[in-house]
Amino acid sequence: MKPFQTIGVIAKRDDPRLATPLAQLLEHLREHAYETLLDESAEGLLPTETLHSRATIGQRCDLAIVVGGDGTLLNASRSLADDDVPLVGVNLGRLGFLVDVLPERMLPVIDTILAGHFVEESRALLHSEVWRDGTLVTRQDALNDVVLHSHEVVRMIEFDTFVDHRFVNSQRADGLVVSTPTGSTAYALSAGGPVISPALAAILLVPICPHTLSNRPIVIGAQSQIEIVLYEQNQTASQVAFDGHTTTRLQPGDRIRIRQKPAMLRLLHPPDYDHFHILRAKLRWGEKH
Amino acid sequence: MKPFQTIGVIAKRDDPRLATPLAQLLEHLREHAYETLLDESAEGLLPTETLHSRATIGQRCDLAIVVGGDGTLLNASRSLADDDVPLVGVNLGRLGFLVDVLPERMLPVIDTILAGHFVEESRALLHSEVWRDGTLVTRQDALNDVVLHSHEVVRMIEFDTFVDHRFVNSQRADGLVVSTPTGSTAYALSAGGPVISPALAAILLVPICPHTLSNRPIVIGAQSQIEIVLYEQNQTASQVAFDGHTTTRLQPGDRIRIRQKPAMLRLLHPPDYDHFHILRAKLRWGEKH
Amino acid sequence: MKPFQTIGVIAKRDDPRLATPLAQLLEHLREHAYETLLDESAEGLLPTETLHSRATIGQRCDLAIVVGGDGTLLNASRSLADDDVPLVGVNLGRLGFLVDVLPERMLPVIDTILAGHFVEESRALLHSEVWRDGTLVTRQDALNDVVLHSHEVVRMIEFDTFVDHRFVNSQRADGLVVSTPTGSTAYALSAGGPVISPALAAILLVPICPHTLSNRPIVIGAQSQIEIVLYEQNQTASQVAFDGHTTTRLQPGDRIRIRQKPAMLRLLHPPDYDHFHILRAKLRWGEKH
Amino acid sequence: MKPFQTIGVIAKRDDPRLATPLAQLLEHLREHAYETLLDESAEGLLPTETLHSRATIGQRCDLAIVVGGDGTLLNASRSLADDDVPLVGVNLGRLGFLVDVLPERMLPVIDTILAGHFVEESRALLHSEVWRDGTLVTRQDALNDVVLHSHEVVRMIEFDTFVDHRFVNSQRADGLVVSTPTGSTAYALSAGGPVISPALAAILLVPICPHTLSNRPIVIGAQSQIEIVLYEQNQTASQVAFDGHTTTRLQPGDRIRIRQKPAMLRLLHPPDYDHFHILRAKLRWGEKH
Repeated sequence: MKPFQTIGVIAKRDDPRLATPLAQLLEHLREHAYETLLDESAEGLLPTETLHSRATIGQRCDLAIVVGGDGTLLNASRSLADDDVPLVGVNLGRLGFLVDVLPERMLPVIDTILAGHFVEESRALLHSEVWRDGTLVTRQDALNDVVLHSHEVVRMIEFDTFVDHRFVNSQRADGLVVSTPTGSTAYALSAGGPVISPALAAILLVPICPHTLSNRPIVIGAQSQIEIVLYEQNQTASQVAFDGHTTTRLQPGDRIRIRQKPAMLRLLHPPDYDHFHILRAKLRWGEKH
Repeated sequence: MKPFQTIGVIAKRDDPRLATPLAQLLEHLREHAYETLLDESAEGLLPTETLHSRATIGQRCDLAIVVGGDGTLLNASRSLADDDVPLVGVNLGRLGFLVDVLPERMLPVIDTILAGHFVEESRALLHSEVWRDGTLVTRQDALNDVVLHSHEVVRMIEFDTFVDHRFVNSQRADGLVVSTPTGSTAYALSAGGPVISPALAAILLVPICPHTLSNRPIVIGAQSQIEIVLYEQNQTASQVAFDGHTTTRLQPGDRIRIRQKPAMLRLLHPPDYDHFHILRAKLRWGEKH
Repeated sequence: MKPFQTIGVIAKRDDPRLATPLAQLLEHLREHAYETLLDESAEGLLPTETLHSRATIGQRCDLAIVVGGDGTLLNASRSLADDDVPLVGVNLGRLGFLVDVLPERMLPVIDTILAGHFVEESRALLHSEVWRDGTLVTRQDALNDVVLHSHEVVRMIEFDTFVDHRFVNSQRADGLVVSTPTGSTAYALSAGGPVISPALAAILLVPICPHTLSNRPIVIGAQSQIEIVLYEQNQTASQVAFDGHTTTRLQPGDRIRIRQKPAMLRLLHPPDYDHFHILRAKLRWGEKH
Repeated sequence: MKPFQTIGVIAKRDDPRLATPLAQLLEHLREHAYETLLDESAEGLLPTETLHSRATIGQRCDLAIVVGGDGTLLNASRSLADDDVPLVGVNLGRLGFLVDVLPERMLPVIDTILAGHFVEESRALLHSEVWRDGTLVTRQDALNDVVLHSHEVVRMIEFDTFVDHRFVNSQRADGLVVSTPTGSTAYALSAGGPVISPALAAILLVPICPHTLSNRPIVIGAQSQIEIVLYEQNQTASQVAFDGHTTTRLQPGDRIRIRQKPAMLRLLHPPDYDHFHILRAKLRWGEKH
C-alpha cells in the first residue's frame, strides 16, 4: 500500500509564478492516482481548481506539499502540526532552510518521497500565551520564534525573564528572541545567537541589542517553561511577534509564557537530505580555501 | 576678568529631586555675583524663579550648567551648539558619559570651572536631512546618533548605503545606527559597535541585526557624507530617530543624508577629567583580577 | 544510615591559604565520625596528615570535598568521574561556576550535604582521542572543553569538522573550542559562544576568530561524534588542550575525535543552589536598573 | 617627462606561477624604455635576470610593482615606506585588499599608472618597540597590525593598556590586536573589530577572546601612543607578532610601545579604484536581495 493517498497542496499566496508548477504538480499527482486537495492559499492562481480550507487539508490529507518559501512553510506548520500532517517544502528557485526541494527536481523528488523514500524529522514548535492581569490575551504557535520587541519608538524595553519559575535576569534591550532550533538560523542568528541542530531538544533565548554587554544568548532544555514579564513602569510600547507574522501589542506588566508545543511538526526531506549542506549553502561556509 | 559672567541653568524636566540642588546652585552663583538665567526646562520646580526660553539662554549665556542625565545634556547640546555656549553636566547621582560632575561635588567643581580651571572638549554633532521625491521632509541635529529602524512590525528593512556618493552596500537589517564618537558608547555599543575616542574625527555606522553576518560596523572620516536610501519596494514601515528623541516616519524611496555639523559642542569637564575612567566605571572594565 | 561514610578531601595545590580551612574541615569530619582521606594534592600543607593517592580516593570514598577554585574541581572531575564519586566544591573566597560553597559557610553547608540534603547534578565530560596515521596518540577527558589552537605563531590553522561522519565545514581560524554545557561559561564564552544549561544534553562548537564571519557557534546533540581533521598541508603548528590543562602537539593530518564520556560527573550543591544566581553573580547580570 | 623612470619589481617568494607574468612584465617595461630592477624576492624564478637587494630597490626606484598576495605587499611596505617608494600591487588571481590589479589586466593597468593616471593613497604603518627593564629588545614596523598573543599554551594573558600615558584597562584575554585602518580588514576583523576607512587617522585596539565581555574594540586617534604592559606575575608565556610575520618572545613585565610611523606608505591604484568594491567582493556584501 502507498504510504500516502491524499495529498494537500499549499502555495505561497499571490505569487503568479506558482501557477505553472502548481498545475504540473496537480496533474502529475492525479496521473498517479493520488487524491489531491488544493489549499485556499492558491486562490486566484488556478481558476478551474476547487479550493479547500486549511482545516480540511488538516483533516483529510496524509501529506501536504508546500510550494513557496520558508515563510509559506512556517505558516503551514502552525496550522497543520496539530493534525499530524507531514510537510514537504518545494522552493521557488532559492534554497530555503525549510523548503529544500528545488523546483527543477520537484516531480522526481516528490515521486521518491511518495514511494516512501525520505528522511523524516520532528521539528518542535513553541506555544505562547500572553497574560494581562490574570486574563489570557492571546495564544499562538510558532515554528521559528517568538520575538518581544519595542513598538514604534526606537527605545529599549525592560523586562524580567524566568525559566521554570526561577529568575534569570532583568534586561534593558531592544527585545528578546525566543527561538526553536529551527528558528536558530532565522532572526536569532542576526541577533547573535548560535546555530542549533534541529533535533536538539532545546530552546534558545537571544537578547536583541542588550544594554548590558554580558547578556548573552542562553540555550535551555526544551521541557523548560519561560516567562517574560514586562516592567510595570515600562514606558516604551512593546509587542510580541510569532514567526514574524502575527503580532500582539503589549502593555506594562504583561506576561508572555512560552513552552514547547507537545505536537511536533513532521518535516519530510529527500533521501539525500543533509542539514549541513543547507547551512553551508545558506551561510556561505566552508569551501576549501 | 572672569571667563564666564552669565550662566544658564538647564534641568531635567519634571524631576522633583532637582528642586533643592537647583535652588542651591542658583543661590551659590548669585552670591558670587554671576548673572543666572534659569531655563524653561525647570518649569514647576522653583515657582518663584523667572524662566527663560532656550533661545534666550543661547543668546545671552556664556556657560550653561545642565543638571540631569545624559539625555538632558543631549537635548541641551542640540539647542545650544549653534550658539557656541559651552556646557557642563551635573548628574543626579549616577555617573553619565556626558554629565560627569557628581552632585555631592557640584558647588566646588562649578567654582573650579568658573575660575577657569577645566578641560574643554569639542564634540561633533550630526546634521541630517530626510528627502522624499526631491522635497526636504525634516532636518535634525544629533549629538549621539541617527537611527534608522523598522516601525511597528518586527521585520527587516532594506536599504542602500552610500558614502561620499559611492555605493557601500545593500542591507537587510533591523536598521542602521549612524553615530558620532560620543554616541559610540550609547545605542551603537549595544548593536555591536566599537568604542571611539570622542576627539576622533570619525563617524560610525553599525548595522542592527543584519541578515548578512559579514555586515560589520564601519568607521569613516568625519568629513564624509552618508546617504541611506530606502528601497522603493520596501514593504516594511520604517522611521528614523535623532538621539532617540525626535522621530520621523519614512516612506519607501526616502533618502536620509547625514554629515557632521560644522558647529561643535563645547563640553567642559573638571580638571581631573579622564575619559577612560568614565569608560571603566560605566562598562565595568578593568579592575585588577 | 548516613548517605556518606568515607570522605575524600582534595585541595588546590601549593596554596598555603588552605592549611587552616583543610585542618578545620578534617577535624570537623572526624568529630562527626566520618572516615577522611586527604588527597595527595594537599602535599606540604598539613605535615602530620597521611596523604592518599587519587586512585585510592576514587576507590574508597563515597564523597569528595574539593577545596580550591574551578580548576581544582575540573582536575578532580577528570580523575573521579569513572569512580562515580560525587564532588562538592568549596571556593577560596571567590564564587566559582563549579565551586559554589563559600568558605565562611563551609562547615554548616557540608553538614547539610552530609545529612543528605543537597541538589545533585549530572555533568557531562568529553572524551577525546587524537589519531595520527591510524595510531592513537592520546586520549583525554575534559569537563569544560577541548581546545584546538595554533601553537607558537600567531597564525590561522585550517581544519575540517565532521559531525556524525557528515562534513560540517572547512575553517581557517585561530582554533576551535569544543565544549560541554559546563564549559560554556568558560573559554567558549570569551570566544563568542552562548551560555548552555548544565543539564542540556548538548555539545558546543565555537570557532576562535574565524576568517569567515558567518562561521558561528554551533550546538549539537550530546550523542553526536565530532571529528576535526587538520589539513595535510597545514603549515601552522597546532595543539589541542583538554580543560586548558593537558596539551598535545599536533601534526598535519591529525584527527581529533570527541564524544561525550558515558560516565557523568556527580556534582552536589547546597539545597538552595540556583544556577542562574551564579550566572548573575559571575556575569554581572541583571540588577534592576 | 614620465612620472616614473626606474621601476622595481618585487615578487612573492618561491611561487613558480610567477615566472611567466614576471618575465612578461619586465619585457613590457623595457620595451617602453623603463629601467627595471628585479628584487631578490624573485630568486630562482628567472635565472637570467640580475637580482637587486631591497635596499637598492628602495634607493633607486621611483615605483615598485609588487606581484603576489597581500602578504607580499605587507613585506614590501615595511621595507620601502622609509624610502618613499610608491607601490602597486598585482595579485595572482584572487583579489586582495592591497593587491588590487588583476593579473589578466596587469599590462594595460600598469601602462595607465605609468602614464600618470592613478589614485594615490597614504597608508599608515605602526612603529613598535619592545622594552624590558629599560632596555630596547626590538623595534619593528607593521602595515596591518601588532598582535600580542599567548605563546604555546592555550591560556589567557594579563596586561594593562595605556593610551597617551593614561590607564585604559586591565585585561585577561588571549591577546590584543593593535591595528591600522589597513589592518582592520585582516586579523582584527576576525577578532571582532570594525572596518575602518584606510584614510582615517586612527588606530584600532581589539581584544582577542577577552574574559570580561564588555571589553570591546576601541578606536583612538593616530597621534596617540599606546603602551601595553605585561603583568609582572604573568605566568603565561606570550609573544608579539608584527604583520603576522616577525615574532618576538615576551617576558613578564615587558612593555610594548606602539605609535604611528611618521613615514606613510604610498599605495597606487588604477583610476577606477573603489575601496568599497573591494570590501563588497572580499566580505561578500551587498548584492541586492
